[in-house]
Amino acid sequence: MHKLTGKKVGLAPGTLVYTGPKAKGPIKIRIIDYTEQTVKDEYISRVEDLKQYVHKDSVSWINVIGVHHTDMIEKVGIIFGIHPLILEDIVNVHSRPKLEVQDDLMFAQLQMIYYNSHKNLQFEQLSMVLGNHFVITFQENDFDVFDPVRTRIKGVNWRIRKLDNDYLAYALMDAIVDNYFSIMEETGEVLDAIDDQVVKKPNQQSLQNIHKLKRDLVLLRKNIWPVREVIDKMKKTDKIIKSSTKRFIDDLYDHTIQIIDSVETYREMSASILDTYHSTLSNRMNEIMKVLTVISTVFIPLTFITGVYGMNFRYMPEVEWKYGYFIIWGIIVAVGIWLFFFFKRRKWV
Amino acid sequence: MHKLTGKKVGLAPGTLVYTGPKAKGPIKIRIIDYTEQTVKDEYISRVEDLKQYVHKDSVSWINVIGVHHTDMIEKVGIIFGIHPLILEDIVNVHSRPKLEVQDDLMFAQLQMIYYNSHKNLQFEQLSMVLGNHFVITFQENDFDVFDPVRTRIKGVNWRIRKLDNDYLAYALMDAIVDNYFSIMEETGEVLDAIDDQVVKKPNQQSLQNIHKLKRDLVLLRKNIWPVREVIDKMKKTDKIIKSSTKRFIDDLYDHTIQIIDSVETYREMSASILDTYHSTLSNRMNEIMKVLTVISTVFIPLTFITGVYGMNFRYMPEVEWKYGYFIIWGIIVAVGIWLFFFFKRRKWV
Amino acid sequence: MHKLTGKKVGLAPGTLVYTGPKAKGPIKIRIIDYTEQTVKDEYISRVEDLKQYVHKDSVSWINVIGVHHTDMIEKVGIIFGIHPLILEDIVNVHSRPKLEVQDDLMFAQLQMIYYNSHKNLQFEQLSMVLGNHFVITFQENDFDVFDPVRTRIKGVNWRIRKLDNDYLAYALMDAIVDNYFSIMEETGEVLDAIDDQVVKKPNQQSLQNIHKLKRDLVLLRKNIWPVREVIDKMKKTDKIIKSSTKRFIDDLYDHTIQIIDSVETYREMSASILDTYHSTLSNRMNEIMKVLTVISTVFIPLTFITGVYGMNFRYMPEVEWKYGYFIIWGIIVAVGIWLFFFFKRRKWV
Amino acid sequence: MHKLTGKKVGLAPGTLVYTGPKAKGPIKIRIIDYTEQTVKDEYISRVEDLKQYVHKDSVSWINVIGVHHTDMIEKVGIIFGIHPLILEDIVNVHSRPKLEVQDDLMFAQLQMIYYNSHKNLQFEQLSMVLGNHFVITFQENDFDVFDPVRTRIKGVNWRIRKLDNDYLAYALMDAIVDNYFSIMEETGEVLDAIDDQVVKKPNQQSLQNIHKLKRDLVLLRKNIWPVREVIDKMKKTDKIIKSSTKRFIDDLYDHTIQIIDSVETYREMSASILDTYHSTLSNRMNEIMKVLTVISTVFIPLTFITGVYGMNFRYMPEVEWKYGYFIIWGIIVAVGIWLFFFFKRRKWV
Amino acid sequence: MHKLTGKKVGLAPGTLVYTGPKAKGPIKIRIIDYTEQTVKDEYISRVEDLKQYVHKDSVSWINVIGVHHTDMIEKVGIIFGIHPLILEDIVNVHSRPKLEVQDDLMFAQLQMIYYNSHKNLQFEQLSMVLGNHFVITFQENDFDVFDPVRTRIKGVNWRIRKLDNDYLAYALMDAIVDNYFSIMEETGEVLDAIDDQVVKKPNQQSLQNIHKLKRDLVLLRKNIWPVREVIDKMKKTDKIIKSSTKRFIDDLYDHTIQIIDSVETYREMSASILDTYHSTLSNRMNEIMKVLTVISTVFIPLTFITGVYGMNFRYMPEVEWKYGYFIIWGIIVAVGIWLFFFFKRRKWV
Repeated sequence: MHKLTGKKVGLAPGTLVYTGPKAKGPIKIRIIDYTEQTVKDEYISRVEDLKQYVHKDSVSWINVIGVHHTDMIEKVGIIFGIHPLILEDIVNVHSRPKLEVQDDLMFAQLQMIYYNSHKNLQFEQLSMVLGNHFVITFQENDFDVFDPVRTRIKGVNWRIRKLDNDYLAYALMDAIVDNYFSIMEETGEVLDAIDDQVVKKPNQQSLQNIHKLKRDLVLLRKNIWPVREVIDKMKKTDKIIKSSTKRFIDDLYDHTIQIIDSVETYREMSASILDTYHSTLSNRMNEIMKVLTVISTVFIPLTFITGVYGMNFRYMPEVEWKYGYFIIWGIIVAVGIWLFFFFKRRKWV
Repeated sequence: MHKLTGKKVGLAPGTLVYTGPKAKGPIKIRIIDYTEQTVKDEYISRVEDLKQYVHKDSVSWINVIGVHHTDMIEKVGIIFGIHPLILEDIVNVHSRPKLEVQDDLMFAQLQMIYYNSHKNLQFEQLSMVLGNHFVITFQENDFDVFDPVRTRIKGVNWRIRKLDNDYLAYALMDAIVDNYFSIMEETGEVLDAIDDQVVKKPNQQSLQNIHKLKRDLVLLRKNIWPVREVIDKMKKTDKIIKSSTKRFIDDLYDHTIQIIDSVETYREMSASILDTYHSTLSNRMNEIMKVLTVISTVFIPLTFITGVYGMNFRYMPEVEWKYGYFIIWGIIVAVGIWLFFFFKRRKWV
Repeated sequence: MHKLTGKKVGLAPGTLVYTGPKAKGPIKIRIIDYTEQTVKDEYISRVEDLKQYVHKDSVSWINVIGVHHTDMIEKVGIIFGIHPLILEDIVNVHSRPKLEVQDDLMFAQLQMIYYNSHKNLQFEQLSMVLGNHFVITFQENDFDVFDPVRTRIKGVNWRIRKLDNDYLAYALMDAIVDNYFSIMEETGEVLDAIDDQVVKKPNQQSLQNIHKLKRDLVLLRKNIWPVREVIDKMKKTDKIIKSSTKRFIDDLYDHTIQIIDSVETYREMSASILDTYHSTLSNRMNEIMKVLTVISTVFIPLTFITGVYGMNFRYMPEVEWKYGYFIIWGIIVAVGIWLFFFFKRRKWV
Repeated sequence: MHKLTGKKVGLAPGTLVYTGPKAKGPIKIRIIDYTEQTVKDEYISRVEDLKQYVHKDSVSWINVIGVHHTDMIEKVGIIFGIHPLILEDIVNVHSRPKLEVQDDLMFAQLQMIYYNSHKNLQFEQLSMVLGNHFVITFQENDFDVFDPVRTRIKGVNWRIRKLDNDYLAYALMDAIVDNYFSIMEETGEVLDAIDDQVVKKPNQQSLQNIHKLKRDLVLLRKNIWPVREVIDKMKKTDKIIKSSTKRFIDDLYDHTIQIIDSVETYREMSASILDTYHSTLSNRMNEIMKVLTVISTVFIPLTFITGVYGMNFRYMPEVEWKYGYFIIWGIIVAVGIWLFFFFKRRKWV
Repeated sequence: MHKLTGKKVGLAPGTLVYTGPKAKGPIKIRIIDYTEQTVKDEYISRVEDLKQYVHKDSVSWINVIGVHHTDMIEKVGIIFGIHPLILEDIVNVHSRPKLEVQDDLMFAQLQMIYYNSHKNLQFEQLSMVLGNHFVITFQENDFDVFDPVRTRIKGVNWRIRKLDNDYLAYALMDAIVDNYFSIMEETGEVLDAIDDQVVKKPNQQSLQNIHKLKRDLVLLRKNIWPVREVIDKMKKTDKIIKSSTKRFIDDLYDHTIQIIDSVETYREMSASILDTYHSTLSNRMNEIMKVLTVISTVFIPLTFITGVYGMNFRYMPEVEWKYGYFIIWGIIVAVGIWLFFFFKRRKWV
């Protein structure tokens, strides 16, 4: 579940090894190429066709889906001059978010996050290479969070159409961080639901929910925390990121801090919910045991009394009395009531 | 309850989206404009009328209430030259406290805090833009903590009338931080009350009170902690904040540290109260169970004795004895007393 | 109890508001004025008489007791040119320890700490203004820790008589930090006593003692921790603090670190004592419940046996046997012993 | 198990003392010497034969196995000019990972980690001295993780054959860090297995597994955390590490961070598993005790009823009734059912 | 036990007050004076005789035992020109480890640690003054860890004989830090023993052992942690510490880090052992209570059955049956077995 890395031990650095779950299906390459006036959105089938985008003046967004085709990824790497160590990171789908600069290229890696239909967190790694007017994004599966960006690119009069590829890169990252907000929103709802349940009617299921929530928060934290550093480094990447875009990256940085803040807040809250769960359950249990024990404790002395007059001694004066039986009933009732009020007064029941 | 952000996913950066709960009611714009000699306090109805305040020499405090009118906010932004990303933050009422400088404008965002009638914490975001002799404050609801500032502005001979808009901005922030002191005071009283209850007579309700207190402290911390940074940045904002005001901002900074100190102290104290709650409850429960169990334990052997003489064996010598019954009563009483003192001596009862 | 601040919300910065408990009694001003050759120790009644000390060459220690006379404090402030924000801090008796430099004046604020007769921690705020050959100290109540300093001033041949007011300020601070050592010593004894009690004979009272100890340590920490910063700043205050005094301030700094170290150590120890308390109590409880339950468990099967032969069936062969009764007694004793040894062997009893 | 150090107290600095468990077997020295064209892999028997490698131009990897031969190690040290304090660290097999530069030599020390057949963590210390075209590695036992590196050296066309000894040193370190990934993978599987067991069927064994896991993580953390610093220092070691190799070391650094991240994540997860273990077990126990107590509580009042009619009073009207027995049965059943539903309704059973 | 300081409150700075337990016995002064060629080891009786060592060219190690003779210490201070504040620290035997430079003197203070015969940690403060070719060490009791250093000094051909007093100071510190290794080793053995006991057979004694271990670790941490800083400062003390010695101090620094690492590791391990102790004990207790309760729960319904047939109703058909008694026995056995298997199947027993 929380696979760390599938990095194959013992291979030479720069060897490309896909580390995700078994995958098939062909590689898909989608190109959105635009200038202020024109937009083109197409799928290409041959990796070699990418060569034309290396020195084109229009902004090209090349989205490569299916990084388990390591040979193809290697070819893409050669075409755009990407360092083998970076390619290795691209096909290792369990990397830590990071940002590196290699000559004129900037390489960033983030995790896109979504809840699958079983409400389990899924991570889809997005690798991004930013070069001369192009942005290449690599991912394994079809899932992405970029539709709004595509819509803006295809619309007219959007800022994105007038600016260069660094703004496109920012827009993609912004979409990912926006996505974190939805995830946190969803997590927050889960947390509220659990909190509600714990205060009202805690059970074994709540415990497993809290446990799952805490693990999810650990995973979110692990994957979101380094994003702060990524965006901070991006801000300091001069040449590749134009200064006009920096104002936007500042904003993105603020959003990341806010997300991290929320993860921490949720962690504290989930710890506090766990505390409350334990206390509530233990209080409830104690209440029950107390009442049960009180019932036993009332009847045990009474049974003793009946036991006494169940003895078969030949000479037991009370037994001979005409009203002995009723007197004993009186005593039993009196003792029972007295015990009950005794416990009542002490607030034990 | 602890909504993070309502930021709509997928919109272009700089798109204004109001993120608070559903709201209606018109936008209200209140202007307090003053020089050392004159004061004017009025509501205006047309956003366009604000244009005159851009280059006026008197100090103008423009208070805009109802940020859900995003179109109006956009117009205000255009009139005063506020960056769209800042406007986006203004209408997003769940931002993290922050301070940014954009050319000649300083933008600050803080949360005003109050307990509503259900004793729940409420946050009312205040955004403040400080420019050329004007201070614009944006908020969603009518609640604010600025009446004392208004009183001082309208009075005569107050320092505020003689100074520029940076002092006004300071005065507003100071009012907000003062408000934190009241909130902490109120929280401190809640904490004392819970502490008292926990030591004297803890119950399930105390647990929920502690739980609520801890959540409130988490929220307070999340919203107050960044204020420290905001004020620190403000101190370092040269041109816009005059050096004569800096002495006051130092003081404000000290107050913020003191508030943060108190939040931390309260957090520790509430953790310690929770500990004590658990221990006290568990001690009390243990006491009860011990006493109940002792009662059962005394009577069970006694019942066994009566059981013995309740058997119907044809030949049971004791049963035939004349004083058998009384002897057994003697034994029962002796065993009972012995057990009681045995437990007493061991301090089990 | 742990009042944060009584700062009145909504007043203009620099307004003097006394925030302590209701107080009466006149203001008292005691002046100790000395040179290497001469000493004078007197009480004055008119604030105006202080004017002569502003430019005197002898070292003057002006001790103002009763800061609830805010009008008097204001006059003192005017005479010595103290900033209104500093005066505000002086009369607010719940400030955080701090140090500020205003032109030629240095302002420091510390808490003197003592246990009152109920063994509750009391804080008495000391504000100190250091100017041209004078030191003014402000406090609310009579309690102080300066008698040893007064003794040294009045003695002859003490270093203090030969040095300027910065050494006097150091000597006062040193007396306060020395006082922290006594407080820690006393707290250490309380901790040792509780530790002893918890290991030997823990009870509900121990719990409340630990709870109180932990709260006291939280308060001590809150008030002592910032002292480190105060003294560090003092060391860096050039002109006002002469370089010859700095060696002493270094020493003071070391003492403060040592005090803070001890507070932290005590916090850890008290947490560890709480753990031990819980474990010991729970072990003890478990022992008791185990023994009680074992007793019940031995007798319940035996009672069952007697129950069997208490049945009234017409045809029960054993009942007719001559030695049935004794055989059953044998069985009962055998079962009882067997159960006892069974539990014994398993170390349950 | 978690031996710290066997450093013999009281010896002069630089005295070589082997600190591992008792060892025998001869020292083994394996030399892999290569240029782009040639490779040689041989064992030598005389330490003196190493002299030729001090100034050779080919890259030499000298692997010394059996550091308990301190006299041999000393000779090696003399031949290559290694400082006695470094030799002392080499033979002390419980050192903290570190990196030092001594003139033209770089000295690094790391722990290779593996699980032995009893699934216990084992640490094998690797010391590495990097000099003029040679890399000397010292270790005590045969275990190493370098086979892939040897394979690459012996293969043709691998990058390693074309580069100098700094790349060899990197490759060895990379192999060690890769090995950490396997260890973490294995630890992750253990953690998953425990998690599964704890959620489904926790028992005393799970507790010991968690305890062992936590200790292992403490040990891993202690040995892996400092590696970060080692690699950071290595990056900054100019002359010895050529700039072409630095890109690879950056990558190694990233991997180390990722490992450390995972150790921390696992620590949090194991803490959370422990919590869940406790809660699940305590819930389960509570359930059982509740059911058992309910059973007792139902039958104790019923037994009381039978006790009443087992009394031997001469005059007990019900006993004489014809249907008395059946009426009592009716009452017993009614009370039993009522109690059962009473408990049922309150969800106690 | 964990005395903080015995600093007498209210004395002038620089007043010498011995703060240890009551002590008697004369002051002892041992001098070891050596050059490369000569060694002299003698006790002197008059403090005045020390004057010759102030400007001697040989290296002199002056060991003063019995710092409660404050008058003597003061004389020594005057002879070697030691600042009164340093002398104050020397006679206060509860100082925090520290290092100060006063003109040409370096002053360092460390704690030597040992377990006494009751296995309690003891601290023996060592103060060291390093001047012109001399090292003066002050301590209260005879205990020290320097015998190996003395042996090396008296031997021939040791490095120490050829170097100056800064190397001697290093050698003494190294001996102290080496001693920490033994202490940690011993503590580690205690920890292992407790761990073993807790996993196998936890009892109340284990709890007290863990509690003691945790306190010891708190004390060790408090006294060892600052040593890091001491040695770091020493490394930066130029003139007094010659650059040739710095290589050794680096090594010492590494050892200190390793010790601190171990203290932290032990702290975590002891916390984890405490957890395990609690869980194991609580599991064991739960097992016992479960079995006992199961036994009661089986017999209580059976006793109810016997109770039914112990009733004395005139008309009870079963009682008249010939095989009634045996049928009931059958029912009792059946119910008993059924209950047993019911509990068995649910794994309650």
